[in-house]
Amino acid sequence: MRLRIDLSYDGTDFHGWAKQPSLRTVEGTLEGALTRILRMESVSLTCAGRTDAGVHARDQVVHLDLDRATLGGIVRSSAVVPGDARVDAPVDALVRRLNGLLPHDVHIRRAAEAAEGFDARFSAIWRRYAYRIADAPRLVDPLRRREVLARPRRLDLVAMNDAAAMLLGEHDFAAFCRRRSGATTIRSLLELRWDRDEQGLAVATVKADAFCHSMVRSLVGCLLEVGEHRQEPGWSRTVLLAGTRNPAVRVARPHGLTLEQVAYPPDAELAAQAVTARVVRTLPAGEDADG
Amino acid sequence: MRLRIDLSYDGTDFHGWAKQPSLRTVEGTLEGALTRILRMESVSLTCAGRTDAGVHARDQVVHLDLDRATLGGIVRSSAVVPGDARVDAPVDALVRRLNGLLPHDVHIRRAAEAAEGFDARFSAIWRRYAYRIADAPRLVDPLRRREVLARPRRLDLVAMNDAAAMLLGEHDFAAFCRRRSGATTIRSLLELRWDRDEQGLAVATVKADAFCHSMVRSLVGCLLEVGEHRQEPGWSRTVLLAGTRNPAVRVARPHGLTLEQVAYPPDAELAAQAVTARVVRTLPAGEDADG
Repeated sequence: MRLRIDLSYDGTDFHGWAKQPSLRTVEGTLEGALTRILRMESVSLTCAGRTDAGVHARDQVVHLDLDRATLGGIVRSSAVVPGDARVDAPVDALVRRLNGLLPHDVHIRRAAEAAEGFDARFSAIWRRYAYRIADAPRLVDPLRRREVLARPRRLDLVAMNDAAAMLLGEHDFAAFCRRRSGATTIRSLLELRWDRDEQGLAVATVKADAFCHSMVRSLVGCLLEVGEHRQEPGWSRTVLLAGTRNPAVRVARPHGLTLEQVAYPPDAELAAQAVTARVVRTLPAGEDADG
Repeated sequence: MRLRIDLSYDGTDFHGWAKQPSLRTVEGTLEGALTRILRMESVSLTCAGRTDAGVHARDQVVHLDLDRATLGGIVRSSAVVPGDARVDAPVDALVRRLNGLLPHDVHIRRAAEAAEGFDARFSAIWRRYAYRIADAPRLVDPLRRREVLARPRRLDLVAMNDAAAMLLGEHDFAAFCRRRSGATTIRSLLELRWDRDEQGLAVATVKADAFCHSMVRSLVGCLLEVGEHRQEPGWSRTVLLAGTRNPAVRVARPHGLTLEQVAYPPDAELAAQAVTARVVRTLPAGEDADG
């Protein structure tokens, strides 16, 4: 059976999603908790968006394959408080035990048996990120300092949205991606828009079928040049069409970035979507990251 | 001249507002930064709401008195980046230099010369706190774990609001206050209401002319007994009328609590309000805290 797990994390103290020897990563931490609770030697996780060091997630999606008997085993071994008549479904017991074992900067939102054909990475139809900026001293909230970038100057969101509009659609985003040989950098940018939220923060909504490495933060870095009037709005298009990394585009700092949502098609279309995504993108394993 | 400073802080790593020898407090930290920047031997701060250890503030208000010449001095001594033609008003320079010197868990939102008769504590007409609870696993957001209490069971907000309504108005809140001899515990509770915010969190809005020590957290603790069905809604009234602390009312944990707003009357009424508040409450210095 295939299990889908939805989780959130504060990326501040992690070296990103992807497992790395002797570094604290979200994947490594979650795998450690799963192997311990499921009493498996190892588990293999596939995730929707491989976030970089310092990037957060409010709804990351992963899948793993396991025996139904292994999952059933955790109900029997579950420590039940005396007098507590709670009888859990195995996945509920798994969620409860994971949240008891995981550190406070990772939290399992839900788990469920995945529908036939589901693949956390290749069935996804789009990923949505938010990038948050406090661009005035009165907007800086110490309680949100881990997920909001502070900038001293007021951003011109009108100019930034003019610049953003010129990047929408299917393009080769090589100018905004960390190059990796043999991988396509063609992506469909479905949404890129700046708004003020209820607190007055400048928030970018960035939605695409998929992102290549460092793409969201490079897009934000490009638009910051426009928003702080070092470049005209049309510069975004110039950068895009040049097709090669421009040193004037700085990769925005990771802590303002949060993976907010991953969308999947209706169950009947999951397998077909996975086949399409694999063929169209034909990406090596490391490429589906953002940062 | 009297200076009004509005600030925010993440209370997690502070032992509350009030200065204590050899403990990290917000007052001590702010005083340290002010004496250094203003080159004064000491400064004396008066604040609107003396928050307890672990309690946060989004808009705390303080005042301090100083010579106009002392404030003017910081513009002359301000380190100006070569080529930066910025000329600050003294208070803007002060805000910038404070934020440069203060740790990341305290932030100055603004500073201004206070109107005649302003007193951060006694001119205030009400204080508003929020208490936030994630009462289901899917609501727990690791990025907000420092300011949101997690509870395993769904809260019955209808019952909690029934119980809350019975506490509104002017009463002796001794049952909800840490007793201190010689101080009145009569307060006007202007608002006490639970709602779900846009994320689905249960949020209490608690507004009163002033609070006595631990009052907000005791009110929340009382309502949690009702919201988790260990007590009927009418129990809140029984506790209030008993007029003495009830051991069944637990003081809710501090980290869910945030001072959100302090309200002042129009400038012309500031001095009169301060006189009234002093007379009506006649509180010793330590009493105006909440927790």
